[in-house]
Amino acid sequence: MQTIIKKIANKEVAFYFNQSLTNMEDLVKVSNVIYITDETVFAAHQQKFANKKYIVVPAGEAHKQQQTVDNIINKLVAFEADRNSFLVGVGGGVITDMVGYVASIYMRGVPFGFVPTTILAMVDAAIGGKNGVDVGVYKNMVGTITQPNFLWYDYSFLTTLPHAQWVNGFAEVIKHAAIKDGNLFTQLQQQTITFYKENLSALDQLIQQNVAIKTNVVIADPFEKNERRLLNFGHTFGHALENPYQLAHGHAISIGMVMAAKISEEINNFNSTDKERLLNLLAKYELTLQINYDKPTVFNILKKDKKRAAETINFIVLNAIGSATVTPIPLVQLNDLLEQVL
Amino acid sequence: MQTIIKKIANKEVAFYFNQSLTNMEDLVKVSNVIYITDETVFAAHQQKFANKKYIVVPAGEAHKQQQTVDNIINKLVAFEADRNSFLVGVGGGVITDMVGYVASIYMRGVPFGFVPTTILAMVDAAIGGKNGVDVGVYKNMVGTITQPNFLWYDYSFLTTLPHAQWVNGFAEVIKHAAIKDGNLFTQLQQQTITFYKENLSALDQLIQQNVAIKTNVVIADPFEKNERRLLNFGHTFGHALENPYQLAHGHAISIGMVMAAKISEEINNFNSTDKERLLNLLAKYELTLQINYDKPTVFNILKKDKKRAAETINFIVLNAIGSATVTPIPLVQLNDLLEQVL
Repeated sequence: MQTIIKKIANKEVAFYFNQSLTNMEDLVKVSNVIYITDETVFAAHQQKFANKKYIVVPAGEAHKQQQTVDNIINKLVAFEADRNSFLVGVGGGVITDMVGYVASIYMRGVPFGFVPTTILAMVDAAIGGKNGVDVGVYKNMVGTITQPNFLWYDYSFLTTLPHAQWVNGFAEVIKHAAIKDGNLFTQLQQQTITFYKENLSALDQLIQQNVAIKTNVVIADPFEKNERRLLNFGHTFGHALENPYQLAHGHAISIGMVMAAKISEEINNFNSTDKERLLNLLAKYELTLQINYDKPTVFNILKKDKKRAAETINFIVLNAIGSATVTPIPLVQLNDLLEQVL
Repeated sequence: MQTIIKKIANKEVAFYFNQSLTNMEDLVKVSNVIYITDETVFAAHQQKFANKKYIVVPAGEAHKQQQTVDNIINKLVAFEADRNSFLVGVGGGVITDMVGYVASIYMRGVPFGFVPTTILAMVDAAIGGKNGVDVGVYKNMVGTITQPNFLWYDYSFLTTLPHAQWVNGFAEVIKHAAIKDGNLFTQLQQQTITFYKENLSALDQLIQQNVAIKTNVVIADPFEKNERRLLNFGHTFGHALENPYQLAHGHAISIGMVMAAKISEEINNFNSTDKERLLNLLAKYELTLQINYDKPTVFNILKKDKKRAAETINFIVLNAIGSATVTPIPLVQLNDLLEQVL
């Protein structure tokens, strides 16, 4: 067990690693806690919620919509939840995004924490305070940036995580390595998903490395004015593909990283050996490298991306493995690149 | 014309008094502005929106619900609004509450300003950053506290404001005087609504006095930890009555102030002469002093009030005219007071 406290946007956020959910009672006053989870997590870990107040919502990105938020809020009202209540989201990124959002708007803000139950949520989604829901096919179109009080890492949830979700999470691990940490990239080349699945202490270390990478970026730039934009590597095209083609987030951003690597080669002198290393690593971790898609459809969604500012998109390109840069690319040029390079 | 800049919760908020909407073009880049107003304001001032991008929503508290927010967001997506867009809410408190809320969640936050068109919004609702919507009958159950970039006072909107809305707004003016400013209270005793309607410079001065009172309280305590709670004088019972009995906000809080004054007399030695002065002033400004209501219904709503903390409500009592205090009152005691005193 290890505890790290980080100050993000003037709020102290505590990270508790290698914990058990049952010990959380030492942290928060049990009678005030309302757990919010999804049907998948609840079915697999029902006994963990015994004698607790909880709300269970349908699982999956398709339900990351205002309607689910409305349902949660109606249940909080029925529980007579007030500003002394403490919401704890137990689940993957869809749950942590929605619970963070609900906690930041319910009664204009109540305290909250996360128990991320997927690799993706542990290394990425639950960290940094971004929350919200999709609006139709448009990803994270509404939300806030509000830091949780704590993240609680209970690896026992991973025992029931499907293999496909391990693959999904490693897309963000590879992204962190690609933009920020060449050594981590090399380490990943030497290992496999199976190794991390079977070696808890190596996994714990990998997760803590990734928490450190993401947290440092967020601390430097909590409201995404510059540095934090780097975390969007692979996400511009990834988000545009994810909902219309019903891709898992990891596969969507893997394809997005391949596209961004090709654009980096075209406009940023990113060398082709490094590009091949990235493609090989994504493949080694069983991620998708490309799909057939309709270019006009994708471009139309791209135009509504939050990273757009008027007629330009702040696009993330690689300089080398472990180093990335934000480059504003005009929409017309991005459309040309989409037509010619990708 | 007069401009005052106040720093609230680390954000500079500009107040432009005695302006015309047409001059706003000097302030914000017109091509980025999307105006959001309601059907009543639009019908009366349609020419002011010529050649502008605008969204019109149904008027009235009954529409201060998530569904209207969903509609506004869908229209912003259709406009391809991005983080360079600037939302301007033109209307009463319902509009400024919803536009502030939308602006604080759309793409996790876009800049926004208000053109308050009612007395109530000018002196109260549009100031201080609180925003949100009701959830069923529960007032302001979701929302955020996010300061606008500016408030723009164009008194030409008041030429079409129904008399009942003038009365409505003076409830908050009287509240400000009762909790903070004995001199303003005396001034109000000497005047009438008709005087302020017919005397623009006196009205402008009255509005600026009220903006100063509210702004100073909000600056001292932007997130309502203590001082700002005083502004809830009359609002605990007022909010519990407002939606179930379909009262205008001003009349609801007028009744709530009468109830709070009686409780102040009962538990805080507030003297009966001052209580009578308050009742007489509310009556002089044509506000309702009492209605028949079902005590259990009101108490049940009260229990879900945001000002509740566990089994206690932070209640505002008067010490004297111009001075108020927060007193935690247990729910059981409040129920007794409801049964015996009111």
